[in-house]
Amino acid sequence: MPPPRGFPAAEFAARLERAQRLMDDAGMAALMLTTEPEVRWFSGFLTQFWQSPTRPWFLVVPARGKPVAVIPGIGAQCMGRTWIEDIRTWSSPDPGDDGISLLAATLRDVADAGTVGLAMGPETHLRMPLTDFQRLKAALSGVAFADATALLRGLRAVKSEAEVAKIRFAAQAASTAFAQVPEILSEGMSERACFRAFKIAALEAGLDDVAYLVGGAGAGGYGDIISPPSDRRLASGDVLILDVGGVHDGYFCDFDRNFRVGAVADDARRAYDVVWRATEAGLAAARPGACCADLFKAMQAVMSGAGAADSNVGRLGHGLGMQLTEFPSITPWDRTVLEPGMVLTLEPGMEFSPGKMMVHEENIVIRDEGAELLTVRAPREMPAIG
Amino acid sequence: MPPPRGFPAAEFAARLERAQRLMDDAGMAALMLTTEPEVRWFSGFLTQFWQSPTRPWFLVVPARGKPVAVIPGIGAQCMGRTWIEDIRTWSSPDPGDDGISLLAATLRDVADAGTVGLAMGPETHLRMPLTDFQRLKAALSGVAFADATALLRGLRAVKSEAEVAKIRFAAQAASTAFAQVPEILSEGMSERACFRAFKIAALEAGLDDVAYLVGGAGAGGYGDIISPPSDRRLASGDVLILDVGGVHDGYFCDFDRNFRVGAVADDARRAYDVVWRATEAGLAAARPGACCADLFKAMQAVMSGAGAADSNVGRLGHGLGMQLTEFPSITPWDRTVLEPGMVLTLEPGMEFSPGKMMVHEENIVIRDEGAELLTVRAPREMPAIG
Repeated sequence: MPPPRGFPAAEFAARLERAQRLMDDAGMAALMLTTEPEVRWFSGFLTQFWQSPTRPWFLVVPARGKPVAVIPGIGAQCMGRTWIEDIRTWSSPDPGDDGISLLAATLRDVADAGTVGLAMGPETHLRMPLTDFQRLKAALSGVAFADATALLRGLRAVKSEAEVAKIRFAAQAASTAFAQVPEILSEGMSERACFRAFKIAALEAGLDDVAYLVGGAGAGGYGDIISPPSDRRLASGDVLILDVGGVHDGYFCDFDRNFRVGAVADDARRAYDVVWRATEAGLAAARPGACCADLFKAMQAVMSGAGAADSNVGRLGHGLGMQLTEFPSITPWDRTVLEPGMVLTLEPGMEFSPGKMMVHEENIVIRDEGAELLTVRAPREMPAIG
Repeated sequence: MPPPRGFPAAEFAARLERAQRLMDDAGMAALMLTTEPEVRWFSGFLTQFWQSPTRPWFLVVPARGKPVAVIPGIGAQCMGRTWIEDIRTWSSPDPGDDGISLLAATLRDVADAGTVGLAMGPETHLRMPLTDFQRLKAALSGVAFADATALLRGLRAVKSEAEVAKIRFAAQAASTAFAQVPEILSEGMSERACFRAFKIAALEAGLDDVAYLVGGAGAGGYGDIISPPSDRRLASGDVLILDVGGVHDGYFCDFDRNFRVGAVADDARRAYDVVWRATEAGLAAARPGACCADLFKAMQAVMSGAGAADSNVGRLGHGLGMQLTEFPSITPWDRTVLEPGMVLTLEPGMEFSPGKMMVHEENIVIRDEGAELLTVRAPREMPAIG
């Protein structure tokens, strides 16, 4: 059974309270949010309409009181079903003034001459035209803009139980689809046909969307893990990787599985074993108080011990939630301390021979006693297709 | 049969030549591109990996010579399969310098002290952290940044035949799925189950992805066209709208269809007829030399003549291509002149009673002799489910 859709208003009230405490500490009179996950975290506003780049959407979080939505009229009814009460709309698109004067007036209402926090740092962008941002700044003399990246990512990194339940459901549904792969894929199928069959299986298993599916196959191993499928047909001796970002109620799972077609070369089987054991080391190390760099070290030690070359992925996992990848990063330099409620991917990967990679991935939530798997753990040995 | 995947290198060379002519006219020494469609239009770089917000990706288009990719190492192999030759990578994420010094060096190489064009206007955003953009500007004293929005949207608005073929394939596959709706949906199904069944039918009809599906049902009409599905069950007297953004090889169709469950109220049937006829008026008016405002006027005249209140959509259609919605907009103020090769949606909509809307949508390409439909035209009368 899927968990309940959405969140109770009390959860949004609790999020807002946490945010406003941090805003007080940082001396911010308001937050100005422009991207889908930021707006949704505070409001519950869930729609795929963000895929249209035409219209900007804004949420203003004041130091006191509930957030104020400043949005195109087309979204008023959808926003009206959230816990947000103050919804200010304009008819968008409007090339003369696409919400900027309304946004400026709202920020002047709540921030006066204070500081407005905005996501400006790593993994963020401003989802509005740059010229409109310049206009906004010109209209708000006396208001300073400051970087709220650290504040926002700290809030979002620790998930509520309701959020964890959504990610778990997505991960379990995708696990169900992966368990069917040996039956639904077969030698001779094109990568494209494999991807389509997997997407349908994942929808039938209960995912709302298969928003992300990358991977591919190669003789004895694959060299690229971010490409769309090709017309190449699965052949005996191939290793296939499927990496899925499946969505339930706006929350992602993100993990991969490896399969062999018939018998594969020993080095690929050995690499599978090494990376599986690296994941075990990550699972053992993932507990409150450890930091991301500790996780990196634990997983990398297993792979380096087996003579692995680094992959070009740049990290061995990351945060997970409303986005396919979120703060923090499992790297040697990320000293973020793990806390109960953080949801992460463990994603050890290595190049085991020139141009051939092996990448595993699991999704976990940090509990008092350590890692709780949200995915069904990858098989101990590489499963066969067909 | 789907059209061939990708594009021949000659198409990218022709795109680049058009771009460099316009850059010369605008006095731009380079373009700096940060978003998926911009980068893909010039390079052919196709991956869903853009869904991860972690890493920035850059393409630099010089005034002479081929574009230069400045990208995370994880994308080198995928980019290496495009026509791009100069691929500069760094290990990302890197919080100390996430590609900015490499990008600055590349821009200095090609732009020296000239002007760098950047999308800063309507329907655009800068896909990189704002603090990184500030760092980049600081590193590039002597380089001026100018708005390249008009240049870029002009280039992308007129599609090649290969691009049109991809959109047509997506539109035809989605049309096939819509034709199955009366059989696969039925009274008593939840909206959520309807959406899932439609997605599976659309994948089976040949779409790569159903990246966008919104809509919903209501007794005698719907009031909101951007929401995800609910648990509400289809009941006799409902009007259901499904609005799909289906993807083939990185190109979107975007259109909707309306269905009735059993018999519906007369005003909904009348509204269907009015909006169907408004679409006919749009189809007749869509020819080279007409402008977007003419299309708006032609469609609005039919709806106003029938006593329609405006919808809150803000426009009656838009451009279509690598994005669900693209420049231009079918509004009273958009004077963009239609040219052969432009792909548009005609999307007339009206509120026919308080809180009840009727929206139709078709996808067309402008030809010398007028509009060519890419979708299978909506039925003359509202089709019934079950």
